[in-house]
Amino acid sequence: MRYELYYWPTIQGRGEFVRLALEEAGADYVDVARMPARKGMGMPALLACLDGGAGGQPAFAPPLLKAGEALIGQTANILLFLGPRLGLAPRAEAGRLWAHQLQLTIADLLGEVHDTHHPVSVNLYYADQKKEARRRAGEFTGQRLAKFLDYFELVLANNPRRGGFLVGARLSYVDLSMFQMIAGLRYAFPNAMARLERDYPGLVGLHERVARRPNIAAYLASKRRLPFNDEDIFRRYPELDH
Amino acid sequence: MRYELYYWPTIQGRGEFVRLALEEAGADYVDVARMPARKGMGMPALLACLDGGAGGQPAFAPPLLKAGEALIGQTANILLFLGPRLGLAPRAEAGRLWAHQLQLTIADLLGEVHDTHHPVSVNLYYADQKKEARRRAGEFTGQRLAKFLDYFELVLANNPRRGGFLVGARLSYVDLSMFQMIAGLRYAFPNAMARLERDYPGLVGLHERVARRPNIAAYLASKRRLPFNDEDIFRRYPELDH
Repeated sequence: MRYELYYWPTIQGRGEFVRLALEEAGADYVDVARMPARKGMGMPALLACLDGGAGGQPAFAPPLLKAGEALIGQTANILLFLGPRLGLAPRAEAGRLWAHQLQLTIADLLGEVHDTHHPVSVNLYYADQKKEARRRAGEFTGQRLAKFLDYFELVLANNPRRGGFLVGARLSYVDLSMFQMIAGLRYAFPNAMARLERDYPGLVGLHERVARRPNIAAYLASKRRLPFNDEDIFRRYPELDH
Repeated sequence: MRYELYYWPTIQGRGEFVRLALEEAGADYVDVARMPARKGMGMPALLACLDGGAGGQPAFAPPLLKAGEALIGQTANILLFLGPRLGLAPRAEAGRLWAHQLQLTIADLLGEVHDTHHPVSVNLYYADQKKEARRRAGEFTGQRLAKFLDYFELVLANNPRRGGFLVGARLSYVDLSMFQMIAGLRYAFPNAMARLERDYPGLVGLHERVARRPNIAAYLASKRRLPFNDEDIFRRYPELDH
């Protein structure tokens, strides 16, 4: 099965959570919008895919995953689909639902990260909402971030299975997503993270172990891993990092 | 199977999307936090449930659903679980994923509704973020809301099966959730909705058909349906409605 990922070609964004799962599993996939338009890919293919194609199922936003006949939108939904197929989720329904619950909570945290620099509207530039951003980011680094990290550290500590994973005894896509969150938070909020990290040894250790996995390490060192940048969800604006 | 719903007892909130599914299906359920604490229910039971109990699986926030041994958090995840069991989702995986994709997009819209009155932080009162709220709500009623409604109207129009449902040929939990969105938007933004609604005959018709379903009509007329109120996600603040 060759998977096709459709996502913005210049940012990690939400697509990165899917890329990490595909890379860890060594799956055969194409990052379609990053391939040439003259080969029928690139941005035109992404935009056509959003329209839903023959199936008549339009998507509100990327990422999208094509897998044979299936066309799936919403990041967590894509991971719900891929998890068992890539060996990155529990087989039993209870475990799959628990992994998905955690992934949706990671998505909530990611949404709050996004809104630190876009508290008024995605349709306005950051420069046009800097004042509101400063206030929202202060609440985020001062309150909300620790509330989420407390929660995920507790999930790790409560996991009755050894291994230091969030779900069960084996690596899941949730661990890969948590790696991405820690990496992104460190990029965007180096000061806040330097202050907070000592309270989250479990999550910091998880980030390190994921980064050292051979397929992930190779991916991170490759050109396939786009660099963090300030058009992305995680942005390094020093005025928002306290 | 008697389901137990754990949600804040005085608001519709995110729990309402679960209540509507249980009510439409005529399921046996208890809305635990609205029952007396002296019977082992009420708020103490909700708070204990958030901690995760014996399974060691804490939840970040309600709603939670208990179904036998299963304890499931995140609204869309609960509906993913309940859908096939209540006859409110397609049986095949492709249909279930498509329904879930739409439900997650409804959750995105609901999050944007929430942030119209809480653009800075959930930890601050509305009165302490009124200025930012006015600006964010203006972007919401002026831009974002129509973008979402355009999308869902298109999904309805694109559905190749007759019946006027969002997914396939039968009512699903996605239709019930869209009913709740339209009802809530009308409560919170009567002026904006009066201006916009004519462009969405499909969604307006869907809302009407859901409201007339016998089990839903009986529920809406009962005391089990909490009234909209301004501690909830949908709030009627005239200064935010343009």
